[in-house]
Amino acid sequence: MRPATLLRALNPVRPVDVVAAHCDLFCGVYYPEQARIEAESVKACADKYHASDDEVFRARCIAIKEERAELTKHHLWVLWTDYFKPPHLEAHPQLHDLFWQATKLAGDAKKSMDPQVGQDLLDAIDGISKIFWETKGGKPDWLSA
Amino acid sequence: MRPATLLRALNPVRPVDVVAAHCDLFCGVYYPEQARIEAESVKACADKYHASDDEVFRARCIAIKEERAELTKHHLWVLWTDYFKPPHLEAHPQLHDLFWQATKLAGDAKKSMDPQVGQDLLDAIDGISKIFWETKGGKPDWLSA
Amino acid sequence: MRPATLLRALNPVRPVDVVAAHCDLFCGVYYPEQARIEAESVKACADKYHASDDEVFRARCIAIKEERAELTKHHLWVLWTDYFKPPHLEAHPQLHDLFWQATKLAGDAKKSMDPQVGQDLLDAIDGISKIFWETKGGKPDWLSA
Amino acid sequence: MRPATLLRALNPVRPVDVVAAHCDLFCGVYYPEQARIEAESVKACADKYHASDDEVFRARCIAIKEERAELTKHHLWVLWTDYFKPPHLEAHPQLHDLFWQATKLAGDAKKSMDPQVGQDLLDAIDGISKIFWETKGGKPDWLSA
Amino acid sequence: MRPATLLRALNPVRPVDVVAAHCDLFCGVYYPEQARIEAESVKACADKYHASDDEVFRARCIAIKEERAELTKHHLWVLWTDYFKPPHLEAHPQLHDLFWQATKLAGDAKKSMDPQVGQDLLDAIDGISKIFWETKGGKPDWLSA
Amino acid sequence: MRPATLLRALNPVRPVDVVAAHCDLFCGVYYPEQARIEAESVKACADKYHASDDEVFRARCIAIKEERAELTKHHLWVLWTDYFKPPHLEAHPQLHDLFWQATKLAGDAKKSMDPQVGQDLLDAIDGISKIFWETKGGKPDWLSA
Repeated sequence: MRPATLLRALNPVRPVDVVAAHCDLFCGVYYPEQARIEAESVKACADKYHASDDEVFRARCIAIKEERAELTKHHLWVLWTDYFKPPHLEAHPQLHDLFWQATKLAGDAKKSMDPQVGQDLLDAIDGISKIFWETKGGKPDWLSA
Repeated sequence: MRPATLLRALNPVRPVDVVAAHCDLFCGVYYPEQARIEAESVKACADKYHASDDEVFRARCIAIKEERAELTKHHLWVLWTDYFKPPHLEAHPQLHDLFWQATKLAGDAKKSMDPQVGQDLLDAIDGISKIFWETKGGKPDWLSA
Repeated sequence: MRPATLLRALNPVRPVDVVAAHCDLFCGVYYPEQARIEAESVKACADKYHASDDEVFRARCIAIKEERAELTKHHLWVLWTDYFKPPHLEAHPQLHDLFWQATKLAGDAKKSMDPQVGQDLLDAIDGISKIFWETKGGKPDWLSA
Repeated sequence: MRPATLLRALNPVRPVDVVAAHCDLFCGVYYPEQARIEAESVKACADKYHASDDEVFRARCIAIKEERAELTKHHLWVLWTDYFKPPHLEAHPQLHDLFWQATKLAGDAKKSMDPQVGQDLLDAIDGISKIFWETKGGKPDWLSA
Repeated sequence: MRPATLLRALNPVRPVDVVAAHCDLFCGVYYPEQARIEAESVKACADKYHASDDEVFRARCIAIKEERAELTKHHLWVLWTDYFKPPHLEAHPQLHDLFWQATKLAGDAKKSMDPQVGQDLLDAIDGISKIFWETKGGKPDWLSA
Repeated sequence: MRPATLLRALNPVRPVDVVAAHCDLFCGVYYPEQARIEAESVKACADKYHASDDEVFRARCIAIKEERAELTKHHLWVLWTDYFKPPHLEAHPQLHDLFWQATKLAGDAKKSMDPQVGQDLLDAIDGISKIFWETKGGKPDWLSA
C-alpha cells in the first residue's frame, strides 16, 4: 500500500491534511491561469479570422488556434490529474464532468471559427478556476496585486 | 446550439447514431495501444534501473521513465476527452474515474522506481482498453492478426 | 573496440545471442504499431479532406496530416536505427531499402492529398511489421487478444 | 517601407497610437504571468532538492528545474521580441538589459541548486511585469479578482 | 555576489579572460549557422509559395514557414542570452538591438509571404554572425573547409 | 505512376537533372552542419562530465547529451530520407549503411560517457557531409567564407 493511500485509510476525516501532506512531498506549482491565457489566444484567433479577408492571415489564425487549443487542453488535463485529489472530488463531485466538458470545448474550439465557442471555453475555465482558488484559500498577492 | 447538441436534443433515443455521426465529421484515429506501449517503457525503465548499478545508466532510466510516463498520460487524456462521448459514459459510468486513476498512476510512476507501479499502470490501461474495444466492436484485423 | 563489436568478433556464428545480449542491456520497447497508427491518421486526413468543402476543415486536414506523417517517419526511423541489428540485416538484406521507401512515402504523404499515397504508406509499414514480428517470434498476447 | 515604419515616420509624436494600431493587426495575447509561474517551479525544485535525500527524487528535481527554466526563458523571450515595441523602449530604455539579465538568470537557475537564484529570477520577472502592466494600464479583472 | 560578477569586479581590465573562464565551466556549443539555416527555409517557403498555385502546397508553405521562423527566433534568442557576455556587449553596444531587430524580423517573416522579409532576416543574421565569429577569432576548419 | 518515377523511366541517363527537377518542386533546405553542431554538444557533454565531480553538473551533462544526441539522430534521418534520392544512392551505394552506422553511433553516444564515442559520431557525420557537399558541387559562400 502506498503512503498516501495508507494515510487516507487511517485518517478518513482529515482530507485537507492529507492533501497538504501529499503536496509537501510531491506537488508542483499549479495555476488555472495557464489554461485561461491559452484560451484567450484561442478566442482572439477566431475573432481575428473574421476581421480579415487575407488568405495567409486566415490560414495562420486556424493554425495558431489549433496549437493554443491543444495547450489549453494540456494545462487543464494537468490540473485535473495532478492537482486535484480525492478529498477535492468529494467536496466538488462535479469536477470530473467540468474538466471533461472544458477539454471537449477546447477540442470544439479547434474545429470551429465561432468566437462564441472560445467564449464558452473561457467561461468553463473560469468555473474551474473559482473552485481551484477556493481549495487554495485565495490567490497569492503577486497574482492579484 | 451546436449541431451535436441539436442532434441529441432531437433524437435522444439513438445515442449510438449520434456518436457515429459525430465521428464521421470530426473524429480521428484512436488506439489505447499507444498508451499501453509507452507504459511498457515506463515499467521496463523501473526494471532496468534495479538491474544496474551504473550511475549513468540509472540516471537515464529515471529520465526516460519520466518522458514515457508523460506520453502515457497524454495518450490517455486524448482518449478520455476526444474519443469517449456522453453515450459511452452512460453505458460505463466509471469511465471518468478509470481515467483519473490511470493518469494518476502514470504520475505515480514518474515518482517511483517500483516496477509494481508500472504494472498497476499497465493493468489500469488494460481495463480502459477492454471498454474501448467493446465500444468499437472488436479490434481490427491488422492489429490482432 | 566497443563491447558489441568485440562480442561479434569473438562469436560470429551466434548472431541471435548477440542481439539478445545487446537488448538485455540497452534496448527499450519497440512496436511497428506506433508507426501504423499514425499512418492511419495520415490516410484518414486525406479521405476527410475530399469529403468536405469547408475551408477551415480542409486547412486542418492538411495541417494534421503533416504532423501525423512526421510522427510516422519518426517511429519508423527509431525502429530502423534502434531496434534492428546487423544479424537482422543479414537475414533481411532489403531492410534498409524498405525503411527508406517507407519514410519517403511518409514524406510523399505530406505533399499529397491522394488517399492512395496514405494506403501505400500503410502497406509499406505492414511489410516492415511482418518482418519485425518474425524477428520477435510473434505478437504478445495483450496486443493480439 | 513597411506600414508600421511608415506610420512612425509620419507620426513620431503619437507612439501609443502606433502601438495600438500594430496590435490590432498582428498582436496576440501576452502575460508575464506565464514566465512567473514557470519560475515558481524553478525555485520550488531547488527548495525540494535540498529537503530530500532520495537519489531518484533529487535527479527529478534537477531535470524538472531544467525544463521549467527553459520555459521561463521562452516566455520572457516572446515577451521581449513580440510584445514590446520601439515606443515602449523609448519610455523604458532599460528594457533590453532587464530581459537579458532575467533570461541569463533563468540560465543560471538551470546550473544552480541555490533557491536564491530562483528567487532572483522571480524578482527580475516581477520588475518586468511591473513595466508590462503599466504599458497595458493595469491587469484585467479576471486576473486580479 | 556570484563568481563571474566577482571576477569582473576584481579584474575589470581582462574581459576576454573572464569570458574564457566562464565558458570553460558552463558554456556549450554555439553557431549562428543554426539560425541562418532555418532562415533559409523561411525565405524558400515564401519563394515557393509564389511559384505555385496549388492550394495544398501553398497552405504547407505558410505552415512550414511559421515553424521555421519560430526555430530561427529560438536559435537567435539562445545566442543572445547564452553565448554573449557583458564584455561582448561593451565591445559591441549595438548587440541588444541587433538581436531585437533580427528576432522581430523572424516574427515579421511569419506574417508575410514577401521573400524580401526573408532576405532582410538573412541579412540581419549575417550581421550578427560576423560579430560572433570575430569574438571567436574565426570559423573552425570543419565549417569553412 | 508518380511524376518522379515517370521522369526517371523516360530519362534514365540524366539522374542529376531528375534530382534538380524534384528539388525545384518539393525540396527544402538541407545542411549536414545541423547534425554536426548537435554532435559537437554530445562530445562536449562527455568531456565536461569527466572534468567535473559536481553531482548536479554531471546529471545535467547526462541529460543534455541525451537530448543533443536525439537531435543529431533527427537531423541525420531527415537528410537520409528527404535529401538523398535514388541517383545519389546509385553513385554512393554505401549511403544506407553510413546513415545506419551514424545514427546508431548517436544512440551509442546516449548510452556512453566516453568522449571517443562522440568523436566517432563526429567522424561519421564528416564522412556523410563530404558526400553531401559533393552532390551539391561545394558549400555556399556564406558558410565557408
